[in-house]
Order: sequence, then structure tokens, then C-alpha cells
Amino acid sequence: MHEQFLQQAIDLATENVKAGRGGPFGVVIVKQGSVIATGVNQVTLLLDPTAHAEILAIRAACRVLNDFQLMDCILYSSCEPCPMCLGAIYWAKLKSVYFACNRYDAMQAGFDDNFIYDDVALPLNQRHMTMQHIQLINATQPFEIWQQTVNKIRY
Amino acid sequence: MHEQFLQQAIDLATENVKAGRGGPFGVVIVKQGSVIATGVNQVTLLLDPTAHAEILAIRAACRVLNDFQLMDCILYSSCEPCPMCLGAIYWAKLKSVYFACNRYDAMQAGFDDNFIYDDVALPLNQRHMTMQHIQLINATQPFEIWQQTVNKIRY
Repeated sequence: MHEQFLQQAIDLATENVKAGRGGPFGVVIVKQGSVIATGVNQVTLLLDPTAHAEILAIRAACRVLNDFQLMDCILYSSCEPCPMCLGAIYWAKLKSVYFACNRYDAMQAGFDDNFIYDDVALPLNQRHMTMQHIQLINATQPFEIWQQTVNKIRY
Repeated sequence: MHEQFLQQAIDLATENVKAGRGGPFGVVIVKQGSVIATGVNQVTLLLDPTAHAEILAIRAACRVLNDFQLMDCILYSSCEPCPMCLGAIYWAKLKSVYFACNRYDAMQAGFDDNFIYDDVALPLNQRHMTMQHIQLINATQPFEIWQQTVNKIRY
């Protein structure tokens, strides 16, 4: 069963490259044994660096379910999700994830997934990108107002 | 200068909560000293778990510049980007990032940022979410076709 959905994700990835529409990545999201959404990489087509297959599939599945969470859903990806997509998978509260290639296969094909994994794990001041925590006196004001708000939708 | 843009991000976050439109997070993206795009958390409003302030600001800035990369742009966030948003920042090739609160402030306000950072750093089989690498015989086919494709747009 897992193999069948993974094969579908791989086929989507292959078709996407052949059609010249984006990178070699495909995803299907399954609920109760049925595919409810798919996604392929469309970064360059949509001019959107966040338009990875997983992100687009998660957004599509949420539209189908009319929800901002995907409990009880399984994500099948042609390749191990990058840190961005992995974060999205946690926020969407998917049940489980299966993938066919890994970050090292992606690296060999010229993609930064493994570099980003390594860099994200480093302390701020050792990363390749300049990132700095600047403390402002009222920085936590948004959080304080959030915590005081009674009728909020938690996520 | 950094403080001024960070204050703008904090103000956006505060206004977002007060308006009941989403979580306490705001972002501004600056190019050559001018704000070119902003974002606030709209996860529950848009029913989209990826609709964090950073993601929406990056997508908006890309539309403004008509590009899938944000070279020479600086991102100011009211709070340290979560792993999803940090990944997006790398893919967008932003120049630098400044933030006012950190992942521990977010945790105290009830958000999973720190949990996700910790979990993403663990080996697959130790994570709280089921994730599995299943090897299929033709798994790397999309990458092989990608590498054989001459007229592709790299990203």
C-alpha cells in the first residue's frame, strides 16, 4: 500500500520534470486509503520559493477538508521533505510520512536540502546566513495580548 | 534601523491579534532600505497551516520583485522563524534575518516552534511523528531525468 502511493508520488515528480513545470518532486496526501490531494514542485513556474510539492499538497488537502490541520492523513513524497516542508508537516499535524529518496539523493541532483538541514542545526552565529536576535523592550507584547485573548482559535 | 523595522513587525503582530485574524506574529521584508512586503499569521483565517507571517511575506515580496529569490533583501520578524519559515528563508536566499522574540518566548505563549526544532534535529526513528524511508527501485528516476534536462530553470 505504501509502495503504491510512493510510486504515484514518483510518477508525479517525473511528469513534472518532463513537462518543464518545475523540480523533480511529487507528493500525494492520503486519508482513509484515498488520495485527497497531490502536489508537484512549482517554484519557478509560480515564482514562489515556498511552492514545494509538500507545501502545495498540504494547502490543497486543507482546502479539501476545510481545515487547517490534516489529522489522520498520510503524506507520501518522492523525496525526504526539506526542513521547510518538514516544519509544515508538523504544523499540519499529519499522522505519518513516507518518502522514496532522501536528502543525499537530492544533494547529488543539485538541491540544497542537506545543506539547509546542516545549517539549521547550527547555533545562530555559526550559520551561513546572518541571523540575529535583537532584544526590544516591548518584543513580547504580541504574545501577552494573545494570551489575554479569550476567544482565539489556537493552532 | 534594524530596531525600526523590528518595531514595525511587532506592531503588525499586535494588530493581527487585536483584529482576531490570527497568531501573534508579524514580518516585514526590506530591500535597499524600503519595506517591499509584509506578512502576518493567517493560519486559522485562511485554513492554511503554512500561512505563517514569514511565508506570506516571502510570497508577497516575490510577487513584488517578480522573482523566486529575494537576494539583497532583509527579513525582520517579531519572533524567531520556526523551522518551516527558516527553511523558506534559505530557499528564498534572503541576505539576513533579524528577530525580536525567540523560540522560547513562543513556547511560553503556547506555540510548538521549540518542540519542532528539537524533533527535526532527531534521527528519523526517534521523532514524535512516524517517518519512514522506503526504498523503491525507480526512486531516483525523477532526479535522473532532471539531470538529463538541458533547458531547466535551476532554483
